Amino acid sequence: MRLKLGMVGGGEGAFIGAVHRLAARMDDEFELVAGAFSSNEENGKRTGERLHLAPERCYASYQQMVQSEVARDDGIDVVAIVTPNHLHAPIAVEFLRSGIDVICDKPLCTSYSEALQLADVVRETGRQLILTHNYSAYPLIREARSRILAGELGEIRYIEVEYLQQWLATRLEETENKQANWRTDPKKAGAGCIGDIGTHAWQLASFVTGMLPESIRAELTSMIPGRVLDDDVRVQMRYHNGAKGRLWASQVACGEENGLRLRIYGSQGSLSFSQENPNQLWLKPFDSPMYCVSRGSMSQWEENRAMSRVPAGHPEGYLEGFAQIYREAATRLREGGGASPLLPGIEIGLQGMAFIDAAKRSDDNCGQWIDFTQYRCSS
Amino acid sequence: MRLKLGMVGGGEGAFIGAVHRLAARMDDEFELVAGAFSSNEENGKRTGERLHLAPERCYASYQQMVQSEVARDDGIDVVAIVTPNHLHAPIAVEFLRSGIDVICDKPLCTSYSEALQLADVVRETGRQLILTHNYSAYPLIREARSRILAGELGEIRYIEVEYLQQWLATRLEETENKQANWRTDPKKAGAGCIGDIGTHAWQLASFVTGMLPESIRAELTSMIPGRVLDDDVRVQMRYHNGAKGRLWASQVACGEENGLRLRIYGSQGSLSFSQENPNQLWLKPFDSPMYCVSRGSMSQWEENRAMSRVPAGHPEGYLEGFAQIYREAATRLREGGGASPLLPGIEIGLQGMAFIDAAKRSDDNCGQWIDFTQYRCSS
Amino acid sequence: MRLKLGMVGGGEGAFIGAVHRLAARMDDEFELVAGAFSSNEENGKRTGERLHLAPERCYASYQQMVQSEVARDDGIDVVAIVTPNHLHAPIAVEFLRSGIDVICDKPLCTSYSEALQLADVVRETGRQLILTHNYSAYPLIREARSRILAGELGEIRYIEVEYLQQWLATRLEETENKQANWRTDPKKAGAGCIGDIGTHAWQLASFVTGMLPESIRAELTSMIPGRVLDDDVRVQMRYHNGAKGRLWASQVACGEENGLRLRIYGSQGSLSFSQENPNQLWLKPFDSPMYCVSRGSMSQWEENRAMSRVPAGHPEGYLEGFAQIYREAATRLREGGGASPLLPGIEIGLQGMAFIDAAKRSDDNCGQWIDFTQYRCSS
Amino acid sequence: MRLKLGMVGGGEGAFIGAVHRLAARMDDEFELVAGAFSSNEENGKRTGERLHLAPERCYASYQQMVQSEVARDDGIDVVAIVTPNHLHAPIAVEFLRSGIDVICDKPLCTSYSEALQLADVVRETGRQLILTHNYSAYPLIREARSRILAGELGEIRYIEVEYLQQWLATRLEETENKQANWRTDPKKAGAGCIGDIGTHAWQLASFVTGMLPESIRAELTSMIPGRVLDDDVRVQMRYHNGAKGRLWASQVACGEENGLRLRIYGSQGSLSFSQENPNQLWLKPFDSPMYCVSRGSMSQWEENRAMSRVPAGHPEGYLEGFAQIYREAATRLREGGGASPLLPGIEIGLQGMAFIDAAKRSDDNCGQWIDFTQYRCSS
Repeated sequence: MRLKLGMVGGGEGAFIGAVHRLAARMDDEFELVAGAFSSNEENGKRTGERLHLAPERCYASYQQMVQSEVARDDGIDVVAIVTPNHLHAPIAVEFLRSGIDVICDKPLCTSYSEALQLADVVRETGRQLILTHNYSAYPLIREARSRILAGELGEIRYIEVEYLQQWLATRLEETENKQANWRTDPKKAGAGCIGDIGTHAWQLASFVTGMLPESIRAELTSMIPGRVLDDDVRVQMRYHNGAKGRLWASQVACGEENGLRLRIYGSQGSLSFSQENPNQLWLKPFDSPMYCVSRGSMSQWEENRAMSRVPAGHPEGYLEGFAQIYREAATRLREGGGASPLLPGIEIGLQGMAFIDAAKRSDDNCGQWIDFTQYRCSS
Repeated sequence: MRLKLGMVGGGEGAFIGAVHRLAARMDDEFELVAGAFSSNEENGKRTGERLHLAPERCYASYQQMVQSEVARDDGIDVVAIVTPNHLHAPIAVEFLRSGIDVICDKPLCTSYSEALQLADVVRETGRQLILTHNYSAYPLIREARSRILAGELGEIRYIEVEYLQQWLATRLEETENKQANWRTDPKKAGAGCIGDIGTHAWQLASFVTGMLPESIRAELTSMIPGRVLDDDVRVQMRYHNGAKGRLWASQVACGEENGLRLRIYGSQGSLSFSQENPNQLWLKPFDSPMYCVSRGSMSQWEENRAMSRVPAGHPEGYLEGFAQIYREAATRLREGGGASPLLPGIEIGLQGMAFIDAAKRSDDNCGQWIDFTQYRCSS
Repeated sequence: MRLKLGMVGGGEGAFIGAVHRLAARMDDEFELVAGAFSSNEENGKRTGERLHLAPERCYASYQQMVQSEVARDDGIDVVAIVTPNHLHAPIAVEFLRSGIDVICDKPLCTSYSEALQLADVVRETGRQLILTHNYSAYPLIREARSRILAGELGEIRYIEVEYLQQWLATRLEETENKQANWRTDPKKAGAGCIGDIGTHAWQLASFVTGMLPESIRAELTSMIPGRVLDDDVRVQMRYHNGAKGRLWASQVACGEENGLRLRIYGSQGSLSFSQENPNQLWLKPFDSPMYCVSRGSMSQWEENRAMSRVPAGHPEGYLEGFAQIYREAATRLREGGGASPLLPGIEIGLQGMAFIDAAKRSDDNCGQWIDFTQYRCSS
Repeated sequence: MRLKLGMVGGGEGAFIGAVHRLAARMDDEFELVAGAFSSNEENGKRTGERLHLAPERCYASYQQMVQSEVARDDGIDVVAIVTPNHLHAPIAVEFLRSGIDVICDKPLCTSYSEALQLADVVRETGRQLILTHNYSAYPLIREARSRILAGELGEIRYIEVEYLQQWLATRLEETENKQANWRTDPKKAGAGCIGDIGTHAWQLASFVTGMLPESIRAELTSMIPGRVLDDDVRVQMRYHNGAKGRLWASQVACGEENGLRLRIYGSQGSLSFSQENPNQLWLKPFDSPMYCVSRGSMSQWEENRAMSRVPAGHPEGYLEGFAQIYREAATRLREGGGASPLLPGIEIGLQGMAFIDAAKRSDDNCGQWIDFTQYRCSS
């Protein structure tokens, strides 16, 4: 039996909702049966119809959806939350308290304190909350992680991550662009670039290395005059073993499409990965030839190779990575189980919000180093 | 309403069947409801169960499937044929004659004469036959075609295509590998490398340029001792305007994964595309800087950009290309319509079989040039 | 007539001396006629002999060389100083005061105060001092500069430069390696990574943009236990127009050979250059296709194209870039003239030493921002 | 003592003469002391003056030069012939018969029969004739050769070489372009594209594999209307062990600068090299990760690493490759010795002319296979 999926958000004009639906469909583990797709009722209805939903399961609000679905014998097993950030927490709480598992888009919510409260609800209800940090589900990001944790690079010295886009290089929020509108609005987004793509970069760096910094310092900037939220964030990290890191995220880096890039250097070698070509992982051992692990090839560790849907040389992309989160979510939802290092959950969400919190505090204090070990999620 | 899809072939141990199902699911235009997945009844049942099919619609044979499905009110609209090549034509004929449209994996069948007969059936029945030449559905291959047909490269001078793999570089057919077994068996495959991947390269070259050669000559070789079918094919093409072409396909090119690469040179510039990174198309105008059209970017023609499921910088891959065929097939199946240059049908299948026929005749005659205009499909 | 060149340093076991000689020879503007190649007399003699010098012009010390050469009718016109850093200033002063022009390897000397004194000597004597910041003489670095200064990228927002090597990733200085020995010795090198390669990165960034930061902050680290000098340096820059910059240099980045890379982002587009392939410059206009300016091609500005020794497609490399400095030095030495933005001189040397000074002060003060406009060279 | 070098050809308006001089100078093994640079006396004088030659050693003709230089005590040791092709043989014969060694640009001469006569002269006089096939002197081409001959790729199956340029894509010979004029003139060039760049590709393929084909067939075309000589050549090769090869050279491939590329496939793996980035050699073992041997790195065989003038990561280019020929020529000229597989001599020149001869015969006979073993140079 497929898992019965509901969705909040993702109506016409939205972006990530369609991606979630596509990802959920790809491995045929989910069936979308209910939705509260939009605060605009007409939009919600049209969206549901286009998605072949029964009209009575296209709800005008998420509150109505919870109530009705819980009452049905064939009610949803899990809900995907793909709204602007400020609604993540209230919606998640509502569903969790009603016994429905949650798949939530990142960032978790809009503040560290809100995140702590949400974490309490997750703990109390014993339900699942899965966070779609899709980039960490690329087979070659998993490969990078396997190899680093196995010590292939030796002691880690440098962690370099960047996530560069150009889409907000002009004042796009002054147009009708729905994405630009809410993402630059403090009330809806909570944070700017740091929340939208900074958390992806942050999560990827810690995912691949298994390391969180002891302290960070940061500078958040609105490069475009008139913009309230940050569109550029630069962070420095210090790790317990003396390793150093830098994170740079920008939405105004002209010429960049979706430049999420990762480089890790250790005492024995380094590796690099660029999200724009997720089918190649480059390994550079000290004083030996640089080589390429190709996705799906025999050079991949077996457990990571098993993630692929098509053989080496047949490129996979962004949607396959996203679908991997849904595939692993399906297993978790069926079989239960607690925090796993591979599937991002509430603890990774907390870390992301702690990252934003610490970065803002550093920025507010002239770039002072902030002790990251004080955050609950840091161990 | 989704289109109701049946499938012949694609049981356990098969490769391309799962790809077809995934592609069909991706845009949510099809619902798989029936199948004759394997000549092995147990395999067929297990496959159907795993795919959430009703047990009574998992058939032991395609003949049984035709009979039953035609009799149902909710019978299938279309069947996907993903068997070894020698069964394509007989199965297609059966379904077409019963009024059911066909989506067929390539190559169309096992000989040019069989293809001509199949073409007659398509014409007589007025049903659709769609051939999954998935590589021509990459958004940037479409972009290449748009630009070439618009004259951006000037008069075409050179057409260079190659499709290189390594997987048959050893005698894999002596192991239990099911794919290697039937693909090297003349009775099941009809042709070797030329049919399996040569036809892809051939179709891609003519798709992108809109040109078929006036004459070709070819050399087919079994590089691995003991192999009956060709695992290497080299073809030269001459075009009406003096342009020259080369096609090389090999299954024994060590180090190659799925190296389908295309280069077109004209009097004003050239372009190149490599299937292993389908998110970049390189344009090289005469005496001007080489530039890159990125999939999904504003540099793409609007009609080709519209094909993308995710924005520029979020890589798409093989499955998205394959899904594009299914998406366009859905439109065709709903709306009808005849041969289109974008969606490969019986005429492209005929061209592929004519290509194989001409190549074999050239090879049998010491590489003599064969007049390609004599084939029915060539105009 | 070729210019008569002398050399101090560059005996057996040295590295950069041979590079200077090769660069000087390439365009046939110089003739090496005298040398004080080594403090070891035997080494000096053998080196001179191998270089076809007259025995009487192979000197045991630079003092002796100055004295004798000045006394000759056919004495040297110019001396190349290729010793460890601590000898640069004393040697340069000696030759300048004797009326002989100087070509000096970078960094200029070992401290900002020493640099100021040297600048005074240059001014007083009216002689030339040319600093071999060879990377800024790549034709495509010049191209980057031309285009940025012409406004092609719009207002500059980000300046990113890095110079990564792996050669000191182990304690190489404990072996007989002469290069590692002096470059990690505070007495001879003055500064570590920041002086050796950090100044190259610094000079390149300001060369290409024409911009110096208003303030910088820095962190200098010895990543390898037991090493006294820094082998890792990370700098942040703030510019008058709100632009931000980062500079990272490391000698312990495993897997890196000579990774000097530059990225500049502006309001209209960005560009990137990697020294390891100096024949390609990548331009990425906002929302338009990325393109490649190829060295020697018609796409280069004429003045930059004229620098090439071979046509486009015939790769040039490190030595050609180095030779460009010597070629332009020859013109300067023949024709005289003051500070030019293209040929690095004393003012660029001063800037480099100010950079080191400011970085060390920032590092000594917990990464405090240092006002860079206070340095004499900064305007 | 440096070797005393004379030059025939290479005056103003010439291309390759300056390259020879630069290459000769680079390692300081030669001193240019005499020249007959041009049939135009003024041009010859001006060229000699610019090159710092004594006026009396700037000759009006090569005949005069031979006579005078032989008579001097300090006469030239060796002459570099950099004229159009039709003069190579007569000039070479004159100098060889006068006891002067020859360094000759490729192709050797204008016909196979002329080449045979020249070979006789070389044998009779016992002098050296060195042919500047510079591409085979790239350190990584040597590395490719070392590894292939050591069996690293297993049994060779495919030899693919191409050399693509765009410079003659228009009728440049109708302008004042001196290079285009003589290179498209049958009387001066002897052969078109096949002689100019086809022989480079041919030599490279056999150099790297140590294999000459048993038979070849070819098609020579003048793609540009009105051009007499070929500007496109396509060759197929068959080798004794069943290996197959293709060679394609074109001067009208729009978008290509100097695209000399080589791919060799064997039963254990493959390798690829592109002249436009000669600092990387790609190795692709069967079913293992592709890796990169970097020029100058520890991964190179020691004898090939020793060829480098600068360390790994400091790119070398075309001139360094060319200089390698001169460096090795210097050793040969000093020490004597017969045919070596590394330094191209008369036998490689013969092979090149045999290649052209066989290709033309094949082309004249409708692409018939020509037995290559009948040529004297083929064993």
